[in-house]
Amino acid sequence: MISRTLAADLPERIGERTTIAGWLHRRRQLKSLTFLVIRDRSGTAQVVLPPGTPFDLPEETVLEVEGLVTASDQAPGGAELTAPVITALSAPAAPPPFDLYRPTLAASLPTILDGAPTTLRHPLLRAGFEVAAAGVRGFREALDGLGFTEIFTPKIVESATESGANVFALDYFGRPAYLAQSPQFYKQAMVGVFERVYEVGPVFRAEPSDTARHLAEYTSLDAELGFITDHRDVMSVCRDAVAGMIDSVRERADAQMRLLGAELPSVASEIPAIHFSEAMALITQATGEDVTGEPDLAPAHERWLCEWSAREHGSDFLFVTGFPLASKPFYTYPDPAEPRSSNGFDLLFRGMEIVTGGQRLHRHEDYLAALAARGERPEAYAGYLQVFEHGMPPHGGFALGLERWAARLTGAANVRQLSMFPRDLHRLSP
Amino acid sequence: MISRTLAADLPERIGERTTIAGWLHRRRQLKSLTFLVIRDRSGTAQVVLPPGTPFDLPEETVLEVEGLVTASDQAPGGAELTAPVITALSAPAAPPPFDLYRPTLAASLPTILDGAPTTLRHPLLRAGFEVAAAGVRGFREALDGLGFTEIFTPKIVESATESGANVFALDYFGRPAYLAQSPQFYKQAMVGVFERVYEVGPVFRAEPSDTARHLAEYTSLDAELGFITDHRDVMSVCRDAVAGMIDSVRERADAQMRLLGAELPSVASEIPAIHFSEAMALITQATGEDVTGEPDLAPAHERWLCEWSAREHGSDFLFVTGFPLASKPFYTYPDPAEPRSSNGFDLLFRGMEIVTGGQRLHRHEDYLAALAARGERPEAYAGYLQVFEHGMPPHGGFALGLERWAARLTGAANVRQLSMFPRDLHRLSP
Repeated sequence: MISRTLAADLPERIGERTTIAGWLHRRRQLKSLTFLVIRDRSGTAQVVLPPGTPFDLPEETVLEVEGLVTASDQAPGGAELTAPVITALSAPAAPPPFDLYRPTLAASLPTILDGAPTTLRHPLLRAGFEVAAAGVRGFREALDGLGFTEIFTPKIVESATESGANVFALDYFGRPAYLAQSPQFYKQAMVGVFERVYEVGPVFRAEPSDTARHLAEYTSLDAELGFITDHRDVMSVCRDAVAGMIDSVRERADAQMRLLGAELPSVASEIPAIHFSEAMALITQATGEDVTGEPDLAPAHERWLCEWSAREHGSDFLFVTGFPLASKPFYTYPDPAEPRSSNGFDLLFRGMEIVTGGQRLHRHEDYLAALAARGERPEAYAGYLQVFEHGMPPHGGFALGLERWAARLTGAANVRQLSMFPRDLHRLSP
Repeated sequence: MISRTLAADLPERIGERTTIAGWLHRRRQLKSLTFLVIRDRSGTAQVVLPPGTPFDLPEETVLEVEGLVTASDQAPGGAELTAPVITALSAPAAPPPFDLYRPTLAASLPTILDGAPTTLRHPLLRAGFEVAAAGVRGFREALDGLGFTEIFTPKIVESATESGANVFALDYFGRPAYLAQSPQFYKQAMVGVFERVYEVGPVFRAEPSDTARHLAEYTSLDAELGFITDHRDVMSVCRDAVAGMIDSVRERADAQMRLLGAELPSVASEIPAIHFSEAMALITQATGEDVTGEPDLAPAHERWLCEWSAREHGSDFLFVTGFPLASKPFYTYPDPAEPRSSNGFDLLFRGMEIVTGGQRLHRHEDYLAALAARGERPEAYAGYLQVFEHGMPPHGGFALGLERWAARLTGAANVRQLSMFPRDLHRLSP
């Protein structure tokens, strides 16, 4: 390994000669002095060239710099490298699509996305992904602590489980196959094996529309658990998972959140919840527009409810329960007290749904009845339904979209900014 | 949540009444008594029915059993449930594809795989996946500890990076697209952002052959790091990742390894390594068959080398270095001392390659030369090559196939036994 000190550790070495290595983030030519800012995975370090030293390498060139660590009030962290010996580890870099050293993002979203292999080096963009990675660690830690087992289920499937639409078709050794829209079938079946399972993996939706909240491929954080009483047990685990994600960001990506000017929400031990029909009544009362007959929440309703939750409960999170059964997938468990309602829920966060979940049917005959009520043939779901003949406990689960969660958390206006290489109706590269 | 005691915790409750819940693993009718074995995620518990109690629910039915925890020398853990009150949480279960209560697997691989949603409940099959999950946790922990960042890269790609063959084609909103054979391009590019990255995710290979070691979809544990001196730094990180996986299995799935009758290997602080040409000379000398002109290792060579490594070094692991450059992908860094050799390596484990890795090219002009030497057009790799114009440090990485690693570790003859729902030339369901 190249023997070096990380930029963040430089202040511990004042008075020593040492080596740093990274990208030339910024070259600043003053009248008599030249300053170099070197960027590595830990941050940046300043290098001072003696007056008259020729230096003409462009930004983003990879450098190794050996020098004397010198205390300096002007340098980040209070230390800089002087009397440097500089070695280039790469050829002089071609200019990036925009100046990566500018503190703000001086580029449009398409420019950022087209040049992602290089543009994601910008500290503001990188920070978002570091926040997301910290969140995933927190999700897993929370569920590991609750006795969950991690699973890996297939992404190439024989038929679309969720719905026939919005599915990508592929050629599987000459046969038709599809990309999984979710691990729904598999995670339910694995409750029969492990009781409590989670999966972090890609899901695929052939979304025909281009919005700031949808992607054709995204990272889904899925969980499913058995031996529940009803959906409230799932909501409780979901709350713990989300709290674990926030705690992990606080612990591991606090500097990134500050760089982004983003604030961490607090997660109440019990996240406020509102029934769908009550939510629609409130919106109707407040806006004057009658939405009480609507089957589902529209984006404007989600925004309104989040403002209401912040105002009434001081919470950035809000559960919505009791969605109309007809608006939820066929495997959703009905509310025993009000069978046109369901034990399905959403979790809203800062204006947007980030989680959908609920209790599932667990009796084979209930699946047959639910499919019949929707006019669907059970034969189309034969592989899915089989496991419910072999003893399945009451169970439920949820799925959280990582990019959407991270976008809400960091304040990004478009979910694409939290996908390293987003896929959508128009974008398949880089 | 259904209030219950896990089977493994029953011995702590002797003298109390409590509730357990799980699957009816086994019903044993003796002359005067009936024993039930209940299986939950923690293990099994025994329930004793009073003489004459009618009981006719079949195995795999989900039960809740409230009863008195009673000390018993014959029961697992020294405690059983007596005077039980039994509630069925599912309908009487249909018989599984084979008896899940038999200690050995009394079924062929196709029977197991066809019925996977139910058959994976067998403790021997479940144990394998618990070992694999523990391994993944260890992989992440080892790399998290070394400053790596987790990334999530797209699985739908515009073109095949590795090679044109063995790739699945799909219809992407009317345009052709492909499933990623590896995150190679993306993880290299992300070295430019995070320096050290890893990804755990599915990869897709349209393998036209049906072998016991290949899958059309598998879980790849990928890592890539910058600022290396050469491939030996990558091997060192690979060793730490594998050691972390083994340590995690020891800590979290020791009981599962014992159930499977499998032994954990020790991982030396430096795994023995042999140069490809030396390995081929040894095999030639030992077998009398001249293999010194072969471009790559055949499965029989891998087996021979692993036996040799166990004999000579007492190691279940062996690195093979210095593969002929022509047998490695175009992005492989040549051995500076012997340019027809490469800085690519494999890691063999118990008879089989489980990791492939190496140092990569990092200079744009080296990529152009490498492609030209192979008669390939750089235009086909334009998106891939671009990042190397913007400053990339010396870097390398590796990929480990999770299912193959877990199969070697647990002694499974076929990699399909460690894939929950394997995909191959002939299998697309369940």
